[in-house]
Amino acid sequence: MNLTADIALAHRLADAARAAIRPHFRSGLTPERKGDATPVTLADQAAEEAMRAILAADVPDDAVHGEEFGATNGKSGRTWVLDPIDGTAGFLAGRPLFGTLIALVVDGWPVLGVIDQAILDERWVGVTGKPTTLNGKPVRTRACAALADATLATTGPHYFDDHDGEHFMGLAAKTDHKRMVMGGDCYNYAMLASGHLDLVCEANLKLHDYAALIPIVEGAGGTMCDWNGDPLHAASDGRVLALGDPARLEDVIEALACQH
Amino acid sequence: MNLTADIALAHRLADAARAAIRPHFRSGLTPERKGDATPVTLADQAAEEAMRAILAADVPDDAVHGEEFGATNGKSGRTWVLDPIDGTAGFLAGRPLFGTLIALVVDGWPVLGVIDQAILDERWVGVTGKPTTLNGKPVRTRACAALADATLATTGPHYFDDHDGEHFMGLAAKTDHKRMVMGGDCYNYAMLASGHLDLVCEANLKLHDYAALIPIVEGAGGTMCDWNGDPLHAASDGRVLALGDPARLEDVIEALACQH
Repeated sequence: MNLTADIALAHRLADAARAAIRPHFRSGLTPERKGDATPVTLADQAAEEAMRAILAADVPDDAVHGEEFGATNGKSGRTWVLDPIDGTAGFLAGRPLFGTLIALVVDGWPVLGVIDQAILDERWVGVTGKPTTLNGKPVRTRACAALADATLATTGPHYFDDHDGEHFMGLAAKTDHKRMVMGGDCYNYAMLASGHLDLVCEANLKLHDYAALIPIVEGAGGTMCDWNGDPLHAASDGRVLALGDPARLEDVIEALACQH
Repeated sequence: MNLTADIALAHRLADAARAAIRPHFRSGLTPERKGDATPVTLADQAAEEAMRAILAADVPDDAVHGEEFGATNGKSGRTWVLDPIDGTAGFLAGRPLFGTLIALVVDGWPVLGVIDQAILDERWVGVTGKPTTLNGKPVRTRACAALADATLATTGPHYFDDHDGEHFMGLAAKTDHKRMVMGGDCYNYAMLASGHLDLVCEANLKLHDYAALIPIVEGAGGTMCDWNGDPLHAASDGRVLALGDPARLEDVIEALACQH
């Protein structure tokens, strides 16, 4: 599969999202609340609109699935999955760790993913079969010899249901929990791809939260799956694992199966 | 109290810490574990050493209280309280949200505080009786009309004992919890001072974790206290609150007294 033109298009989408987001960072935006009470801002909407306008003009046969404006059908078998601001709460709190997520899904599988951090000028790009890059330079996950040495990240316990939280705590207890970090949203997966942490464990994610992450993590040498170790797909249950060192997969699944 | 010379000295300390820290960021440092299993790195040690060398040369009569190298007695009644890297776990995870904390405590009260973010080139300075600044420009906390609208931040539930965690959850439940952010360490207090979030609630903090934050938060219009609403001091119990809008203090203390 030759994705050269799609990679160039993904960069243009990320550039457009950056331009839409930057003026709103730390500007005192008042968010609205969506149906699930999660916040959404003018910046989320403007960034998704900017990307959708480019897609409508350039690849009108491709489907679009965006967090804020839903699904637009296509006829090419290809879908662009967009999350204009992953980590809106962190964005509103002034933290430059949120990200624009862009994935190209072909025949149900994400073949191209982008995490773009608009304030720090950092862009991770993952493409099936190629090394993941940060601003054009290859990045690699790091080895993790034992689960007890692993640094674990998650956005926050308030994103887990009680039951999932107990299983998360079972995993956390077996890692180097004094190094565990909370918060971060997609930036945790970017840091895992760049070799600065070992595990990310989350629940209640939607396709637009994780589709872009898969080619990035896997192209850097890591692996992503659900809490049973099965591959992620559009109908996954939202329980997501990322490992920098795939050799720890069995240990992680076993630890997650325990309750703390 | 004329602190002009001390402010200039604090800037030199922060510059020295930045220079010591920057080469180690995302460099793959292997941390050691301290007695309490928390991580410490060469970067923490080098930054504190660089600051102590300046203090020993310039203000040899002042006491120094540093996170990594303990207490050096003085005879001036003044103490420099240093935390070279607040948020070592975040630093190790590649996040540019850690901070160097510098406080000058005179007669038991912090009259000068600095939060320096070495990677983002952000420096908050708070001085008793003056407006807090970020890179030289005044910042202000924001108003918060009701606790239900408040954005709450904390570094992570794993820093609470079980009992404190229940009280924290009591507070969290009464805020706009879909906007709650985890992680961040001292950066949360900086964002509160700059008006991007409303509340920070933590426990198990030490003097070097909070001394520098007090002049910064209060000089920006906010307030800091313990979980009973009493002023913080060197012998406080480590339970720390910061509010951007002091008018919400009674609501916060009441919510914290409940268990979730």
